[in-house]
Amino acid sequence: MADKKYVYSFGKGITEGTGEMRNLLGGKGANLAEMTSLGINVPPGFTITTEVCTLYYENDRTYPEGLEEQVNEAIAKVEKLMGSNFGDPDNPLLFSVRSGARVSMPGMMDTVLNLGLNDETVQGLIKRTNNERFAYDSYRRFVQMYGNVVMGIDGADFEAMIEKKKEELGVTYDSEFTAEALKELVAEFKAHVTAKTGKEFPNDPKEQLWGAINAVFGSWNNPRAITYRNLNDIPHHWGTAVNVQTMVFGNMGDDCGTGVAFTRNPATGENQYYGEYLINAQGEDVVAGVRTPKPIAELEKEMPEIYKELTEIFDKLEHHYKDVQDVEFTFQQGKLYMLQTRAGKRTAKAAVKIAVDMVKEGLIDKRTAVTRVEAAKLDELLHRRIDPNADAKLLAKGLNASPGAATGKVIFDSNEAAELGAAGEAIILVRTETSPDDINGMAVAQGVLTSRGGMTSHAAVVARGMGKPAVSGCESIKVDYEKEQFVAPDGTVVKKGDYITIDGGDGSVYLGQVPTIEPELDDDFELLMSWADEIRTLQVRANADTPEDARKAIEYGAQGIGLTRTEHMFFDEERLPIVQEMILADSAEARKEALDKLLPMQKADFKEILKVMGERPVTIRLLDPPLHEFLPDYNELLVEITELKAKGGDASEIEEKEALLKKIEALHEMNPMLGHRGCRLGMTYPEIPAMQARAIFEAATELVKEGINVHPEVMIPLVSDVNELKKIKEVVAKTADEVIAAAGVDLKYSVGTMIELPRAALTADEIAQEAEFFSFGTNDLTQTTFGFSRDDAEGKFLPHYLDEGILEKNPFQVLDQKGVGQLVKIGVEKGRSTRADLKVGICGEHGGEPSSVKFCHDVGLNYVSCSPYRVPIARLAAAQAEIENPRK
Amino acid sequence: MADKKYVYSFGKGITEGTGEMRNLLGGKGANLAEMTSLGINVPPGFTITTEVCTLYYENDRTYPEGLEEQVNEAIAKVEKLMGSNFGDPDNPLLFSVRSGARVSMPGMMDTVLNLGLNDETVQGLIKRTNNERFAYDSYRRFVQMYGNVVMGIDGADFEAMIEKKKEELGVTYDSEFTAEALKELVAEFKAHVTAKTGKEFPNDPKEQLWGAINAVFGSWNNPRAITYRNLNDIPHHWGTAVNVQTMVFGNMGDDCGTGVAFTRNPATGENQYYGEYLINAQGEDVVAGVRTPKPIAELEKEMPEIYKELTEIFDKLEHHYKDVQDVEFTFQQGKLYMLQTRAGKRTAKAAVKIAVDMVKEGLIDKRTAVTRVEAAKLDELLHRRIDPNADAKLLAKGLNASPGAATGKVIFDSNEAAELGAAGEAIILVRTETSPDDINGMAVAQGVLTSRGGMTSHAAVVARGMGKPAVSGCESIKVDYEKEQFVAPDGTVVKKGDYITIDGGDGSVYLGQVPTIEPELDDDFELLMSWADEIRTLQVRANADTPEDARKAIEYGAQGIGLTRTEHMFFDEERLPIVQEMILADSAEARKEALDKLLPMQKADFKEILKVMGERPVTIRLLDPPLHEFLPDYNELLVEITELKAKGGDASEIEEKEALLKKIEALHEMNPMLGHRGCRLGMTYPEIPAMQARAIFEAATELVKEGINVHPEVMIPLVSDVNELKKIKEVVAKTADEVIAAAGVDLKYSVGTMIELPRAALTADEIAQEAEFFSFGTNDLTQTTFGFSRDDAEGKFLPHYLDEGILEKNPFQVLDQKGVGQLVKIGVEKGRSTRADLKVGICGEHGGEPSSVKFCHDVGLNYVSCSPYRVPIARLAAAQAEIENPRK
Repeated sequence: MADKKYVYSFGKGITEGTGEMRNLLGGKGANLAEMTSLGINVPPGFTITTEVCTLYYENDRTYPEGLEEQVNEAIAKVEKLMGSNFGDPDNPLLFSVRSGARVSMPGMMDTVLNLGLNDETVQGLIKRTNNERFAYDSYRRFVQMYGNVVMGIDGADFEAMIEKKKEELGVTYDSEFTAEALKELVAEFKAHVTAKTGKEFPNDPKEQLWGAINAVFGSWNNPRAITYRNLNDIPHHWGTAVNVQTMVFGNMGDDCGTGVAFTRNPATGENQYYGEYLINAQGEDVVAGVRTPKPIAELEKEMPEIYKELTEIFDKLEHHYKDVQDVEFTFQQGKLYMLQTRAGKRTAKAAVKIAVDMVKEGLIDKRTAVTRVEAAKLDELLHRRIDPNADAKLLAKGLNASPGAATGKVIFDSNEAAELGAAGEAIILVRTETSPDDINGMAVAQGVLTSRGGMTSHAAVVARGMGKPAVSGCESIKVDYEKEQFVAPDGTVVKKGDYITIDGGDGSVYLGQVPTIEPELDDDFELLMSWADEIRTLQVRANADTPEDARKAIEYGAQGIGLTRTEHMFFDEERLPIVQEMILADSAEARKEALDKLLPMQKADFKEILKVMGERPVTIRLLDPPLHEFLPDYNELLVEITELKAKGGDASEIEEKEALLKKIEALHEMNPMLGHRGCRLGMTYPEIPAMQARAIFEAATELVKEGINVHPEVMIPLVSDVNELKKIKEVVAKTADEVIAAAGVDLKYSVGTMIELPRAALTADEIAQEAEFFSFGTNDLTQTTFGFSRDDAEGKFLPHYLDEGILEKNPFQVLDQKGVGQLVKIGVEKGRSTRADLKVGICGEHGGEPSSVKFCHDVGLNYVSCSPYRVPIARLAAAQAEIENPRK
Repeated sequence: MADKKYVYSFGKGITEGTGEMRNLLGGKGANLAEMTSLGINVPPGFTITTEVCTLYYENDRTYPEGLEEQVNEAIAKVEKLMGSNFGDPDNPLLFSVRSGARVSMPGMMDTVLNLGLNDETVQGLIKRTNNERFAYDSYRRFVQMYGNVVMGIDGADFEAMIEKKKEELGVTYDSEFTAEALKELVAEFKAHVTAKTGKEFPNDPKEQLWGAINAVFGSWNNPRAITYRNLNDIPHHWGTAVNVQTMVFGNMGDDCGTGVAFTRNPATGENQYYGEYLINAQGEDVVAGVRTPKPIAELEKEMPEIYKELTEIFDKLEHHYKDVQDVEFTFQQGKLYMLQTRAGKRTAKAAVKIAVDMVKEGLIDKRTAVTRVEAAKLDELLHRRIDPNADAKLLAKGLNASPGAATGKVIFDSNEAAELGAAGEAIILVRTETSPDDINGMAVAQGVLTSRGGMTSHAAVVARGMGKPAVSGCESIKVDYEKEQFVAPDGTVVKKGDYITIDGGDGSVYLGQVPTIEPELDDDFELLMSWADEIRTLQVRANADTPEDARKAIEYGAQGIGLTRTEHMFFDEERLPIVQEMILADSAEARKEALDKLLPMQKADFKEILKVMGERPVTIRLLDPPLHEFLPDYNELLVEITELKAKGGDASEIEEKEALLKKIEALHEMNPMLGHRGCRLGMTYPEIPAMQARAIFEAATELVKEGINVHPEVMIPLVSDVNELKKIKEVVAKTADEVIAAAGVDLKYSVGTMIELPRAALTADEIAQEAEFFSFGTNDLTQTTFGFSRDDAEGKFLPHYLDEGILEKNPFQVLDQKGVGQLVKIGVEKGRSTRADLKVGICGEHGGEPSSVKFCHDVGLNYVSCSPYRVPIARLAAAQAEIENPRK
């Protein structure tokens, strides 16, 4: 059998590969082949395929037969093209050896430069360049890099030897070393390698080459590369290619140089060349920052010919790839070489501008433009955030409980926060965890920081509801209420009144007042989103609990409200006592009395939200959380009573408090997440859904009378069996029909349910017979499908699971398509099997996460609903999903 | 179109129906037809089919066309057979009208007797019987019954009128009424009916008949009938038949009589006629208990001819139906009529004996015998139970947490209980709930009663583990530790030292020492079980945590252990402090130290259990519950500290306790059921599974050396993703292989997992690649599938759900086939798709519940595992499942 092709040559007209062969040649290899075929001057070389990497690991780190021969042939081709020979003491050919996976894994794998130097060939390099110092510097760099990367010597050892040499010679910079000093260093480095490893430093260039190839393939499975792949969803079986390429030198003299550039500005998106270069330098010098590189525009003056050739290549590449390119180049003795080109990474702002500009330029169409912006990155544009140029001291990291950045004085007591906040002070409320007693403080604070609790803790839920930045579960800070301070992991003590800044978007806590910047939504953004809206078939709604949320939702393009949580209204300072009265009621009558007081308040809330949304559908979920969430903290009350007793306090006060304690105790649950909540509350206390339905429909009918054709949808939470839905639906429909009849108006409404328990998905065929719509509550569905309590998991074992790669993603952030997604699919299929026109949406946090939005599109959902701030992300992701998998 | 046949006649040679037509004619109707065809003398009549009932409800309570005609024709046939006419004033035919569904629903629906009497026909009856008093008594009974059942008058009204009449006449018994008095009562009853309803009492016999037919069909949907059907799994669409039958009278004189009998003793199963009769009486007199009926044997002396004919019929029926019959008969003026026959209800003991005897008699085969004993009823035979003849005062009802009956003195303090118990006192430990601190008291108590906590509360779990009777969640009693008493709902105060008796089988709490009886397992039982074992294909294992459990399991026929919970060993008084040391350890080293102390203890436990089980497989589950279950109660400690502080206690003591409190707090979870437990413990603390594996395999290898070929199976709990299993399996296998290699023995073991989370079932194909066996943990699977925390649900909303029929059964007792069962099926199918020979079992409590066992058989499980005491139930249910749905 003829040997398989494992090696692809490129350079000066030879292009065995193409840009399409990314899977086989890796991104870098494919682009080098592609550039060559475009007639761009690329240092000749060859690519060893990713397939070899796979075979290498499959066969116990050995190479397939024929590889060595193919490599030798490829070297011969390069030698012929370059007119120099690998290992030739007169005119040596030198190579760089680099990794190159299908997708870029920057800095994760190994590289060796200047390969092919030894005590003989260095002489040839001197001869050819007439530059002994350059030649020995190249040799020193090679031995240092090879010693580290291939032979495993700690890089710090070499650095220490350089420092020692500087001291000996009394010089400050590397550049002050003479050729002689560099020569000595080479010898010392080699001796050190031998002392440490017991092996001679290889002189044979071929041996050097295979050592470097081994090292690059080996680096595919170094721990940081594995972690990087886990984090970025890169399959481990892909493997890397190895690119062996002729060395060109930007540091051979003043007619040499090197640079990196983007074909457009990657920060702003402006259509102007953007980059830096250094004369007489190698690539690593640009990165090292010892010398300050010059902006690319200066090259036009300094080297107009090179500049002209370079920018022509920029244009050629951009037109060829139809995207911004990030290139590396070197010019050696007046000759320009392109070392690399790839799609340029860019900010969200730049991505939007570039996509829109390229459409205007006729380079791409709208559909392509829509795919050019990573949906998740839009988040950058939608919240106040930490100024990326600010100098900030990170104190700690917690959970990104509610996005946005906020700065304020640290206050530990909610009442104090409420006072100061009312007086106009910017406050960050810091608590171990929050309870309903803290609502007043949270309401005025700029942001909230808690040391305990997960993404669904009281603090997180309420802050998201209020649209306020919050960091929760920041377990590394120690909050001390008595001393009114917290201690950061590095020992920094933050006292009451000190300023901190939090970023709820990534969970960061910074010391002091860090500058923040406003979200920036410009015309380009609006235009791109309008294209997304034209394309997508999946509707996007918002989760909104307040009129402010609803307004924000419309501003961000929501087509309706997919979830209004009525309980958040219950936490209001004025209402909480009435809510508590309702909960602690001894009889249905007493409960009814309290509910009668809540009715006008709920009605007013609903009326305003419905009014804001106008004809758009508004899904209102009936009361969901366990009732004890609204009650005072059990432990605090217990301590209070114990103290009162110990101090011989007032007997009647003790008695009263003990009665309250008993009631809280009676409502206590072992696992409230799986307890007496959701529709189960309405099953035992039908007065509650009846009141809520009355509030909704009185509000709605009044608006209809005012000429606004509202569309309320009543959603019943936590259904596990169709009979629950039937029962509560009866209560709702009875009230609704009464109210509508009394008002004498024409009002259409629908009643549906959350599908948030596995059993609801599994029996969706029965449930759909009663439900006019489904909304997948993927937060709870994730909890029950995994058996993970989010509050406990995110603080305890889940981080460990993600670190170890047990789970690739946090399933509370990214929908677990494998498990939870199966239930979603089952639910959709079974639901539509008995009600063909069933409207199906999702209202968990996943509704605003791009991969989850795509999943929702793929399984045929009608809409996703997410936080108003994520609506644009969902709109864009939905359009991308449609492009990937068209429905229409 | 010819009318459909809705009416089937029977009697004296006419048999339009057959015994096979039970679905159409109901049980009673089919048996009447069958008896007729056997040549047995049945009072002639006809059956209106269950189909009519269905049509009646489908068509808004109207009858199908042609029905009236068919009824008239059937009446004419009876008239011809009887030589008397319905409504004939000279020789009136009278009817009884009774319900009759496919399965017996005793007392749930309506009956009318003596129908056809009015002021004219009563004269005919007088003429024919020469007994005016009898005739008017019949008439009085008819008006009373019809007025109540058909016309809706409260039965108490008539009773009051009878009492008034007695007072007026100065008589004590009904039987003392003269004909005249009865005639007056008839008139008064009718007047009362008219006064109450505004309608005349119908005189026309046909009108009477249709009124009665309407009433019987209507009674199919009375609330108690609906509830009965819900409780007994009888579909609501089945409907009832109506049986209209010639009245025969046992109360026409001393040559008349009536009786009920069983063809064998339904209490003991002995093969002797068993029953009672009364001379000159109607059926209701036998039931009413005013006169004492005579044992059936006396009839032989009193009326030898009737007795001979009757017992010949008994034998004929038993041979025909091949089962014990429960019959009703009447003899009128020396002529014997059989009114009804049906399979006789019997005790578990009788069922076993009768089934075995009938096989010995050649009446039935072994397979039939196995179907003749209701598996669930075996429970009666397997536990000490309250003597059914005892006179006991029920104090309260709680949850049936751990079966068996126990009597003892009430003690509230566990230390006190421990002392008294050690001194030989019989104790019932009564607590609001138990914690690890109560283990010493529980260990010596006869039984445990708690006012809080569900079926998986600490008390319930530990008691079941100890094989001790327990009643948990008995919320209606108020426990007062200070006064050392509890108060029952009726106000009874039970003080420390008072005796109570609890029945953990049904959750009852009785006052005083109620006699209890020992389980009785005789040779018949063993024989029947051996037949079941021959038939069944589903294996039965036991859940056993101790050597005692294991011995009991073998005694009851278990083929292995399906679940050994290792945590129960951790609750031991001696070990708990070491367990706490392990949990509170600050480092892996400190944890290791504590684990090293636990190792020999666990090893000793495992060794003994494995030894008892010998070559039978033993599945040992690694530590499962959240660690804080082993720690002191947070609130108690909090109170202690607060008190110490208030009283200015010792500073170092306070500090120490506060440190402990902080650690407990750090381990606190919002929803421990979904928290850091199961394999998640081993993921973060791999030292724990390593220690447990070492204990298991050191024990196992020592036994192999002793010549016992044990078969340990290590089971990893709460897996949600294959990666968890992979990781822990590695730890276990590494330890196992080390230990086995060091011992130098040949030992086969397997590692498998619980499937107890929806995601595990949904990804079972992946999991099966790592798991050598699956065991469905249907307790947790039910919790997560429904989103019900058992602890909370059973005390809070679940009883309401069952009362209201939202759920037909408690899904924690009877496997929810609709939802949870789907996941079991998915899990089995997916699991076997990647590992064809995967061994699959179930170890939730459902493993011992007959309908769930059948489900497990049907979906192809290899085994069920349940409490040792339920093993015989599972064996029998498995055999019945095989007969119903054969695998072999």
